[in-house]
Amino acid sequence: MNPLNLTRLHYHEEINRLVADLHTQPRVRGFLATDDPPAHTYAHFMQKAFNKFGLLFELSELPPDELYDAIAHANQEDALHGIFVFYPIYGGERDRQLRNSVDHRKDVEGLSHYWLDKLYLNDRFVGRQKKALLPCTPLAVVKILEQTPAWTTEANPLTGKKITIFNRSEVVGKPLAGMLSNDGAEIFSFDIHGSKQFRAGRAYDLDICRADALAQSDIVITGVPSDAFPKVRCDEIRDQAICINFSSSQNFHKNISEKASLFVPRIGPITVLMCVRNALRLFNNFHAQNA
Amino acid sequence: MNPLNLTRLHYHEEINRLVADLHTQPRVRGFLATDDPPAHTYAHFMQKAFNKFGLLFELSELPPDELYDAIAHANQEDALHGIFVFYPIYGGERDRQLRNSVDHRKDVEGLSHYWLDKLYLNDRFVGRQKKALLPCTPLAVVKILEQTPAWTTEANPLTGKKITIFNRSEVVGKPLAGMLSNDGAEIFSFDIHGSKQFRAGRAYDLDICRADALAQSDIVITGVPSDAFPKVRCDEIRDQAICINFSSSQNFHKNISEKASLFVPRIGPITVLMCVRNALRLFNNFHAQNA
Repeated sequence: MNPLNLTRLHYHEEINRLVADLHTQPRVRGFLATDDPPAHTYAHFMQKAFNKFGLLFELSELPPDELYDAIAHANQEDALHGIFVFYPIYGGERDRQLRNSVDHRKDVEGLSHYWLDKLYLNDRFVGRQKKALLPCTPLAVVKILEQTPAWTTEANPLTGKKITIFNRSEVVGKPLAGMLSNDGAEIFSFDIHGSKQFRAGRAYDLDICRADALAQSDIVITGVPSDAFPKVRCDEIRDQAICINFSSSQNFHKNISEKASLFVPRIGPITVLMCVRNALRLFNNFHAQNA
Repeated sequence: MNPLNLTRLHYHEEINRLVADLHTQPRVRGFLATDDPPAHTYAHFMQKAFNKFGLLFELSELPPDELYDAIAHANQEDALHGIFVFYPIYGGERDRQLRNSVDHRKDVEGLSHYWLDKLYLNDRFVGRQKKALLPCTPLAVVKILEQTPAWTTEANPLTGKKITIFNRSEVVGKPLAGMLSNDGAEIFSFDIHGSKQFRAGRAYDLDICRADALAQSDIVITGVPSDAFPKVRCDEIRDQAICINFSSSQNFHKNISEKASLFVPRIGPITVLMCVRNALRLFNNFHAQNA
């Protein structure tokens, strides 16, 4: 079976098992305060996924200037167990502030400061028992890779693997580079400011050109939301490379499958599953005892 | 000369050199929105230090509920080059949100998300040329250690050293553990939730008791703002251990110097120098060209 379908099946089953063990129905609120069309699509699929597993996902549409107070209120609501904000709203600094205003115990996306610190320190637990949260989109990429032959049985399963990532945003590319390098891979990370290397959870300055990075990489991950990005071509990648695109644009040439061992053109369905899984983890970690 | 005085002298000279090269006078605003007495003392010494070096430090006293807007306004002021907020204000989550609301280009304290991410990734630069900021209080501890024999000439100067730190707060103990472990040390980190180990910028769960950690440690660093903390005694530490207290309480027994090779009872004067140094770094990195 295709690794993407394997991933989907695996987490469908895991989530169904987790839901079967619940005594209370977790309640998550999604805040949609943007006109961005992909955000609306994302919100639609998110609600569908939660409902499919029998979980409550209330979608609240509101103007951007009411969002900060709405999050503050949601943080305080005892009977609400998860919060998910759809971005972009303002972009940049202000979106980051909104992200950090969500109480980490309700932060389904897993991108507030509290969880990011743990990610960058590779600190996998809260206390001794509770597993930490990882952000949904980078986690979806890791979970797909786990179902491929690139993922070995070594202690650091990606040891010896090189990975090129086009995107070093704070919300996907950078945490993803951190996570994959924590799993043993060497990462070539590109954004408009240039290249960096990540090894063992650390970032280094490294000047490398796209061609050199791609020629060495077992795995290529793209997330450039622009049609101006020169699409990755067959002649640039290694034979049997794994190619994953998480952008809403297509960053690979359409014939990439002729050379890649696996091409995943979009990861949205897995991302949504990771959001449901994160919501359940938050509920079990922080709310189940009082619910 | 005592390492503490050496550190003071070294950074006095460095700051004077940096100030001599300035073409414009940097302007920093301190926000004091708390009744906490140590915060008032800190603000007083901070203003004194900035003024001594010929830099502008405007102290703005205001009620807590005006602070968020005041920071937002200060972020936008072109002729303002640094912001320093004195904590605690509300404590916990809300103080963290205030901390993250400061634009990283003006964040003299160096504890906003942007700088902390870099710290935990050991990413020492902004772009290729500009050195990253490190938070003032942990930086002061590192700079004192740099002047002791514990700091070797190896690539990771604290290689082979073991360090116990009592405090794992997000603002001092945790970033300090990250920084010292990036410099090669093995850290035993304690807080009320228990012990963790930091190695090479990563955190691990480790159950170790205070006595075992102290018996192994070349360096002991305390930051517990409570008189209920059982003070560290001579019979607990290694012969010639380095002992540094950054808490406003005294966490070492008063006779600790009988066994320690160095005892630093307070680091405030160095912390204040690091704040001035951070303000100058921000100015040179982000504002000098437009000032």
